[in-house]
Amino acid sequence: MGVKQSGIGKSVTRRKAIGAAASATAVAAIATPAIAQGQPEISWRLTSSFPRSLKGCFAGVTRFTQRVAEMTDGKFKIQYFAPGEIVGGLQALDATRSGSVEICHTAPYFYVGQSPVYAFGTALPFGLNTRQQNTWLYKAGGLDKLQAFKAKQGVFYIPFGNTCSQAAGWFRKEINTAADFQGLRMRIPGIGGQVLSRLGGVPQQIAPGDVYQALERGSIDAAELSGPYDDENAGFHRVAKFYYYPGWQEVSAGTCIYVNKAKWDDLPAHYKSIVLAAAADGEREMISDYDLGNIEALRRLAAAGVQFRRFPAEVLDALYKAAEAYLDEVSKNNAEFAAIYKDWSEFRKNASLWYSIAETPNDAFIQRVTRS
Amino acid sequence: MGVKQSGIGKSVTRRKAIGAAASATAVAAIATPAIAQGQPEISWRLTSSFPRSLKGCFAGVTRFTQRVAEMTDGKFKIQYFAPGEIVGGLQALDATRSGSVEICHTAPYFYVGQSPVYAFGTALPFGLNTRQQNTWLYKAGGLDKLQAFKAKQGVFYIPFGNTCSQAAGWFRKEINTAADFQGLRMRIPGIGGQVLSRLGGVPQQIAPGDVYQALERGSIDAAELSGPYDDENAGFHRVAKFYYYPGWQEVSAGTCIYVNKAKWDDLPAHYKSIVLAAAADGEREMISDYDLGNIEALRRLAAAGVQFRRFPAEVLDALYKAAEAYLDEVSKNNAEFAAIYKDWSEFRKNASLWYSIAETPNDAFIQRVTRS
Repeated sequence: MGVKQSGIGKSVTRRKAIGAAASATAVAAIATPAIAQGQPEISWRLTSSFPRSLKGCFAGVTRFTQRVAEMTDGKFKIQYFAPGEIVGGLQALDATRSGSVEICHTAPYFYVGQSPVYAFGTALPFGLNTRQQNTWLYKAGGLDKLQAFKAKQGVFYIPFGNTCSQAAGWFRKEINTAADFQGLRMRIPGIGGQVLSRLGGVPQQIAPGDVYQALERGSIDAAELSGPYDDENAGFHRVAKFYYYPGWQEVSAGTCIYVNKAKWDDLPAHYKSIVLAAAADGEREMISDYDLGNIEALRRLAAAGVQFRRFPAEVLDALYKAAEAYLDEVSKNNAEFAAIYKDWSEFRKNASLWYSIAETPNDAFIQRVTRS
Repeated sequence: MGVKQSGIGKSVTRRKAIGAAASATAVAAIATPAIAQGQPEISWRLTSSFPRSLKGCFAGVTRFTQRVAEMTDGKFKIQYFAPGEIVGGLQALDATRSGSVEICHTAPYFYVGQSPVYAFGTALPFGLNTRQQNTWLYKAGGLDKLQAFKAKQGVFYIPFGNTCSQAAGWFRKEINTAADFQGLRMRIPGIGGQVLSRLGGVPQQIAPGDVYQALERGSIDAAELSGPYDDENAGFHRVAKFYYYPGWQEVSAGTCIYVNKAKWDDLPAHYKSIVLAAAADGEREMISDYDLGNIEALRRLAAAGVQFRRFPAEVLDALYKAAEAYLDEVSKNNAEFAAIYKDWSEFRKNASLWYSIAETPNDAFIQRVTRS
């Protein structure tokens, strides 16, 4: 799969050849600035952090690449590569930045080791829900702040899709008080793990493909990966009995597309617009796919005897307090994070007020009356 | 603003003129099937049911038309017309079906007088929330059913945007029991009004622009239009003291784009794809715009002394019972509605189960801890 970087130039040459031979009328018609950009042939490689088995992610990125191809009559091709086919799943950002690939599908918070600012693109504990995340990004200044940050990292940032609210995790024993976290070995990456450790837990970094075995062997006591859709696929219900909710660590979990900055800047304006609109469509596909996948998997898991447990209020309160303390500490050490966090927190508070008199009481009422 | 219906044909002619004069190489380059469709110049008129003053709707449709223009390098133009500029706001569907205009932005439930099936595209009382509506449409078979229904009506149906959860309405007096609906004259259109009348209320059909005066003069006792964003703009808080929630009649309220079916069928495949992707982007813009607009307006309304009241559980229960009875009756009289309603109800139940262990407990917890 060649990366035809010369596509744009070729098109200009072709247009000149046609123009020279064509009638004066035809030349006038095709020499407008609008056509000047032409329909260059471009072929990009997309490396993904998400294997095909994460069906919601794959459905979203498939819609994205298909739409780009459709809208350009096949001129602009973006080919998906699973993690490991070009680079490892967590090297997607670096490979895009360096130009090894032009584009990737990944999750910003995989890179919090480089800067905690990356977390805002995916999830902070007790963070924004899926729609609030988009509203913060697109209407409340979030996107400008994150794009400015990421341009400095050498990539153009396009928010893309969400797994939506996840599970709090799968546990081999019940959690009745915050003290039950003491010594608990749990697969929980990133900031969620930092918060757990403040309550005496022992967070483990384990690649998604190895979590099942670790849980089966008992080398960990608990694990969180995603929600019913992905977790059922991973088989966690066969080795851990208790499914806890709500997923405080990922109220929503945004993924994204990064484009190598120079490659993005080189795109004609209409191709940029095509990529952005295709991303909006792919995002809706990913969100809807996760939603239905979770709805259906939940019913199967319940039928299979999984025990669903809600964290007691006392447990959530302890996690919340630990999360706030951790994020305050991060703020003290990183001014860029602190500035965005202040703004984000204010938005979360105001958005929560609106949802508390709109979506949430409606949803809660309908859940009550439709429960069988 | 000419409606260049001949745009596609013109482009073909031009291409032939160029092809005939150009070199053999150039001809080969432009004679591939991919380019064969070309970039025809098309100019459509979009009639909207929503004036510019409904800012969220206008923001969404503006993003949609801009994206279509951008992605086609200005070749495919869609121009917005406010209600009354070509046809009245509620004639959008008929004008599109008849071909007076090619496309419109409207709300399906404006047309429940033609068939109750239209309601599924916007809202049923105690219905799906915004994300669930999309999941039902795009993943659970809803869109296929509604598109098949609408193709028979002579239009191609593209779901487009949502106002999200609305207010239950503005009341001049408190509602403490369902008996307080007796004799209440309320502006509440469509199915919501039918449900209110079953509890002794007197629903009034009043055009959006006239609601303020009716409420001010006291010729009605209550009114629902939208949420804080639009309602503040209409000035309801100056003439009614109590804002009630949750908006049971419109848990979400989807709008849509209809395209004249023959015009849709005539579009080249890549233009169809461009319209669909632009609609996804416009939808996200509309939803985000409503979200932030509601968040900000709510704070201003609270500062202005508006009294926010939650309907007592007994009142919601009575409304729910009346709604179910009404929809069962509609089902008995309309087999097409009945088939979709059965499927929709099953989806609502299953989706509510998932949200009850995911989004809702997270949202409710965060609302509690961030309340000042």
